[in-house]
Amino acid sequence: MALRSDWSADSCPIARSVDVVGDPWVLLVLREAFEGATRFEEFRALGIADNVLSRRLAGMVEAGLLERATYDGGNRPRHRYLLTGAGADLLPVLHALALWGERHRPRSTGRMELVHEACGRPTQSADTCSHCHVPVTAADVSWRLPKHPEALLPLAR
Amino acid sequence: MALRSDWSADSCPIARSVDVVGDPWVLLVLREAFEGATRFEEFRALGIADNVLSRRLAGMVEAGLLERATYDGGNRPRHRYLLTGAGADLLPVLHALALWGERHRPRSTGRMELVHEACGRPTQSADTCSHCHVPVTAADVSWRLPKHPEALLPLAR
Repeated sequence: MALRSDWSADSCPIARSVDVVGDPWVLLVLREAFEGATRFEEFRALGIADNVLSRRLAGMVEAGLLERATYDGGNRPRHRYLLTGAGADLLPVLHALALWGERHRPRSTGRMELVHEACGRPTQSADTCSHCHVPVTAADVSWRLPKHPEALLPLAR
Repeated sequence: MALRSDWSADSCPIARSVDVVGDPWVLLVLREAFEGATRFEEFRALGIADNVLSRRLAGMVEAGLLERATYDGGNRPRHRYLLTGAGADLLPVLHALALWGERHRPRSTGRMELVHEACGRPTQSADTCSHCHVPVTAADVSWRLPKHPEALLPLAR
């Protein structure tokens, strides 16, 4: 999924990843997917134009971040978009962005926390529990979101 | 620095960070800055158009990722762009991208390694030494790049 330039065969792995996720909508669609969105209508909550969302979802399927599953939607078949393993492995990128945002673009109305399920404590690392020192993936972490501080949201994987 | 939409006041810290770095050129300029580039001419090695580079550098200064320093360039004053603390704190984002790229977009011609200076071993985490379990920043990590596998590159900070 080339964006402006094609870095898919670059010798630098940062550039090869930028080729896939160096786009604001791709990152926000991923966030929604981790929060449980699967249907086109759910991703529209991002405030994204329908044609842009269609292109991004198709590109993310092509790039192997999402897989498209068909289900019976009544009059016609409908689609769900589910995180693949490669998509779920982008969680540290979102976590690194979340930690930077809380540190350098703080808001007074609440913080996002990345909570390691096993120990129940927030981690300050993108991919490791700060307390237990074990790697954490989508299966091990829940998000405490500023908009629902009372709840812990398990992540899709 | 708004890109397409303005997420700078979003309740989600991921969106607030995406507002700043959800752009392929911003991420690649950051990579070059960590590798030691400071001058406009050095960043041009990215293959970026001059007008696009000018806009990105100005935006990154405005966003507090880079600071512009003036030096005597002979006939006229010239500028260097140096990572700020906030810019250097984006290292985990680049590391998370590097680790994902090596895992899901591998190339046979060499791997990038993130080497913890203190122990000399590569880490598989974006922000923590996998072996020593200590947080690592630009001051603690060197990059082994596929293009120069014999060398360890200390990072700018």
